[in-house]
Amino acid sequence: MIFIIFFLTLLSYSITNASVVDFCVADLSSAQTISGFPCKSSLSVTINDFVFSNFNPGNTSDNPLLRASVTAAAVHQFPAVNGLGISAARLDLDIGGNVPMHLHRGASEILMIVQGRITVGFISSDNAVFVKTLSKGEIMIIPQGLLHFQFNAGRSKATAFLALSSSSPGAQLLDVALFGNNLSSAIVEKTTLLDLAQVKKLKAIFGGSG
Amino acid sequence: MIFIIFFLTLLSYSITNASVVDFCVADLSSAQTISGFPCKSSLSVTINDFVFSNFNPGNTSDNPLLRASVTAAAVHQFPAVNGLGISAARLDLDIGGNVPMHLHRGASEILMIVQGRITVGFISSDNAVFVKTLSKGEIMIIPQGLLHFQFNAGRSKATAFLALSSSSPGAQLLDVALFGNNLSSAIVEKTTLLDLAQVKKLKAIFGGSG
Amino acid sequence: MIFIIFFLTLLSYSITNASVVDFCVADLSSAQTISGFPCKSSLSVTINDFVFSNFNPGNTSDNPLLRASVTAAAVHQFPAVNGLGISAARLDLDIGGNVPMHLHRGASEILMIVQGRITVGFISSDNAVFVKTLSKGEIMIIPQGLLHFQFNAGRSKATAFLALSSSSPGAQLLDVALFGNNLSSAIVEKTTLLDLAQVKKLKAIFGGSG
Amino acid sequence: MIFIIFFLTLLSYSITNASVVDFCVADLSSAQTISGFPCKSSLSVTINDFVFSNFNPGNTSDNPLLRASVTAAAVHQFPAVNGLGISAARLDLDIGGNVPMHLHRGASEILMIVQGRITVGFISSDNAVFVKTLSKGEIMIIPQGLLHFQFNAGRSKATAFLALSSSSPGAQLLDVALFGNNLSSAIVEKTTLLDLAQVKKLKAIFGGSG
Amino acid sequence: MIFIIFFLTLLSYSITNASVVDFCVADLSSAQTISGFPCKSSLSVTINDFVFSNFNPGNTSDNPLLRASVTAAAVHQFPAVNGLGISAARLDLDIGGNVPMHLHRGASEILMIVQGRITVGFISSDNAVFVKTLSKGEIMIIPQGLLHFQFNAGRSKATAFLALSSSSPGAQLLDVALFGNNLSSAIVEKTTLLDLAQVKKLKAIFGGSG
Amino acid sequence: MIFIIFFLTLLSYSITNASVVDFCVADLSSAQTISGFPCKSSLSVTINDFVFSNFNPGNTSDNPLLRASVTAAAVHQFPAVNGLGISAARLDLDIGGNVPMHLHRGASEILMIVQGRITVGFISSDNAVFVKTLSKGEIMIIPQGLLHFQFNAGRSKATAFLALSSSSPGAQLLDVALFGNNLSSAIVEKTTLLDLAQVKKLKAIFGGSG
Repeated sequence: MIFIIFFLTLLSYSITNASVVDFCVADLSSAQTISGFPCKSSLSVTINDFVFSNFNPGNTSDNPLLRASVTAAAVHQFPAVNGLGISAARLDLDIGGNVPMHLHRGASEILMIVQGRITVGFISSDNAVFVKTLSKGEIMIIPQGLLHFQFNAGRSKATAFLALSSSSPGAQLLDVALFGNNLSSAIVEKTTLLDLAQVKKLKAIFGGSG
Repeated sequence: MIFIIFFLTLLSYSITNASVVDFCVADLSSAQTISGFPCKSSLSVTINDFVFSNFNPGNTSDNPLLRASVTAAAVHQFPAVNGLGISAARLDLDIGGNVPMHLHRGASEILMIVQGRITVGFISSDNAVFVKTLSKGEIMIIPQGLLHFQFNAGRSKATAFLALSSSSPGAQLLDVALFGNNLSSAIVEKTTLLDLAQVKKLKAIFGGSG
Repeated sequence: MIFIIFFLTLLSYSITNASVVDFCVADLSSAQTISGFPCKSSLSVTINDFVFSNFNPGNTSDNPLLRASVTAAAVHQFPAVNGLGISAARLDLDIGGNVPMHLHRGASEILMIVQGRITVGFISSDNAVFVKTLSKGEIMIIPQGLLHFQFNAGRSKATAFLALSSSSPGAQLLDVALFGNNLSSAIVEKTTLLDLAQVKKLKAIFGGSG
Repeated sequence: MIFIIFFLTLLSYSITNASVVDFCVADLSSAQTISGFPCKSSLSVTINDFVFSNFNPGNTSDNPLLRASVTAAAVHQFPAVNGLGISAARLDLDIGGNVPMHLHRGASEILMIVQGRITVGFISSDNAVFVKTLSKGEIMIIPQGLLHFQFNAGRSKATAFLALSSSSPGAQLLDVALFGNNLSSAIVEKTTLLDLAQVKKLKAIFGGSG
Repeated sequence: MIFIIFFLTLLSYSITNASVVDFCVADLSSAQTISGFPCKSSLSVTINDFVFSNFNPGNTSDNPLLRASVTAAAVHQFPAVNGLGISAARLDLDIGGNVPMHLHRGASEILMIVQGRITVGFISSDNAVFVKTLSKGEIMIIPQGLLHFQFNAGRSKATAFLALSSSSPGAQLLDVALFGNNLSSAIVEKTTLLDLAQVKKLKAIFGGSG
Repeated sequence: MIFIIFFLTLLSYSITNASVVDFCVADLSSAQTISGFPCKSSLSVTINDFVFSNFNPGNTSDNPLLRASVTAAAVHQFPAVNGLGISAARLDLDIGGNVPMHLHRGASEILMIVQGRITVGFISSDNAVFVKTLSKGEIMIIPQGLLHFQFNAGRSKATAFLALSSSSPGAQLLDVALFGNNLSSAIVEKTTLLDLAQVKKLKAIFGGSG
């Protein structure tokens, strides 16, 4: 067809690099750069790269105390989100389930209730508190980098779908940061103003040394 | 308490602007700038700003032919997402429901199946086709700015939660862009290479003139 | 000269990386990253990298129906623009020449008339139409990601120089996206609301299958 | 038409803000922000906002010594480029015409020859020199923020179209910066290492005091 | 002078907006936008806007327990940094002085020792600990958004100059976030896993209620 | 501990990539990309990467005419700043010490006086002059890309700590750019409007040819 000749000419600069302009499925075997992973060759990209098929609840009984699971679909689990500024996760909470204080340095989070009732709270930089118990039909936005928590507020299991404004949002649980490493108990005491006994008790729970 | 004096001093530059650093709930009554809406005064921000309570299905019977509804929670409906680089929507499809070719200029989209089966497809800039029928437990990413579509692939209602990588993603349905305005039929014919009769037929359906 | 000693010391951190700070001529043989191509070694960069010498009209007779040619100077043709947020192209239209509906996902476009008269139009996201016929002394801006078209509006050849706000703007012709691939005719019909006969007719012209 | 009802619903979040997502024609009467001018109301935007109709040569005889004119189409002359990351200019050089050392802090520049021969040069941060005389069919990229110059290298008038990677690229002529203001001659001498007599001579020419 | 005529013409688009391209001294009386404060009129900008003259130690005796002061020069104290992506602060620590765990959501920090010895530590997102005692001649970088602390490690006063990679870095002290507001003690207990008695003790110190 | 199992699961997507999200210590042996250096493996990163221990005065007697030294801690000297948008330097000026006109294309600069008195000046894009002599307790901001200078204004040595809003700010001394390379004297004369004798005199001092 004569049209085709023209269009191939017209699009010559598009055809060769289009898939990179459109997407950059992460090549997880390569070293990351500041702006994300290098791109997998577009020749090997298929529809299956764009679909994540394990968006299912984790086993909350693995964790009898917190009774919670988080299933992440960020760049390490779902390489197609690389460079696209978004990722997802699902949160499942048994009755009494609890995700303690944590933060995502690199992303705001939208939490969408699928079933049950979840209390969600965050603390802003001026130390104001924002807390609400959400039900089906409600969603909540948690701004980037703020300490926040979620716990089941109802009498049945609860599930939420989460979306985060980064392909690599990060997540840091406050207790693990403070008590799950080798920072000496004396320094933790000094820099948190917690009692030493409290520090040592939580270090024991979270496996910290020092 | 003596600590307080110190902390107020230490935090003097934080306290006054913290809420803007953290978030910028849109003042929809002001004119937008390139980077979004001006911020509502942080003094009037409450937890209710961060919660969107109308994340419910629309009435698909308003639209007997397409049998679809999209409930958006972007900056105009949910001003707290302003500047945070994310928004959400929910998609409800009756049996046979269909969202035709459209694109979001300003956002990539993650589609998370809540119930039912939905066929999702997009066309990349090099004109390759990526299509898959998704079920519960699956999510799909559609890169920014690409033509894509969704339709119900099952025998029951289907619902998906959508997240978009912009607080103001935009949405343009191809048929409305081509046939729902006053671009003359002759120009549409010339620039789409569609037959004039086809153009006129769709102009009639979509309410275009010329 | 004693000055030199000082300046070399003073500039020690500049001298080693200056050319990268200034420019990053693409090494097209390497894999792209999200933010563009890796840089060719600055030792091998010469003035010729910064000059593109093929900014000439293509052969419009290769394409008797559309009678148009586009000569691109984007990163694949002109590697020095890599990372600089700009590229160029020239458009030549014979009498009756026509570039149908297309869009650049990644760039706004400025069109500057060199000779002749060209009708340029775009459709905004709210489906409004902006069309004008331009002559020498006029330029037009087409915002990023919008469907637009150009055709010769005069009785002589027409030429425009184009500048695009990305080193890799991409280009997608609507007809090729819809009719030039293997998306099944049934799905095209369903998601464009075109008649099946029209779809099949254009699939034949643009070489699509299915 | 029943379709319309659906599309209006579907597009409810798009319709209200689409024009801002697409473009933001500068309201030059308002104060600028860091990211550009506030947007003119989209209700008053017409096709004429997107067209700049004064892309013509200036009067080089106004300037018998340099015999050059630059006609800018940046945000102050062409408000529609606000926020779109691009602007344009045309350069006209009489025989012997000369644009001395200058730089654009905020933009890379592509220079496209329309007629004649122009010598273009720039100095990189590691003080290397890149110079070439260009003819029709050639374009050159000058990376952001580097000192550069253009002069007519032929025996006839020369014209180039320029594109810049910012809607507000800025321009600073080195001689005006050094000799066209009230910086004392002693400080200019000390900080440029020029002879005082040379400084005073150029201050007289460029109207500087002190 | 004839040159002047030319240069005014040549620079017409630069002269009017140059100061905004260069800088945007904050108008603190206006509402912030997502990208910072609107610009003070450039007509009223003087050299004094660019100089901050209170870069002196605070009174550490105001705070006998922590014996520390932080003098900030961020956008609220030093409006000229608005939009320039940088700010400064000085830290003075008496013997035994201590700045407990805190973070800056919006900035990386470089700490430069002026006198004395300071122990600086931070915790990365994978909960690794990085701690070192610094002396004169040493500087340390603390990546954006990570929990960190500083305390005087010597037997004399210590001073450091700090630079932060934002004009509005924010600062949040962990103890104030957890114990200085009205988040109920029961929720703090649940979401930090601290003992209730510890929570109540620190709430009393930091003035929290609930 | 049972908690640990949970937290490892919960943090699975964080643990693997946390250090890259947090920091990206430059691997200087790799080729740079547009957005900086690739990251050194996080397994080999230690606290020593985050500390720069040579923040000491250079030998100003190496340079008897200018009597100045600049000690840089940018990405090439201090790889941990890679990607963090900040770097540092210290400036030492003997009596009469002088850093002539120069600019940093890629960074704004904050200058903090440690000892002595320093005159600092810059020229804005509209050619206005901003000059002030600073003493201890004062800091000054110099916006990105503007010509500026510093000289000792007192009767004793002077020291300032500098912070720059880029990990790779660049630095270009005007005299070296104009007179320290092979740009022909005739072109320098033509494009600076300096007298040829002045050009040749400075070319001799700065080692330029041509």
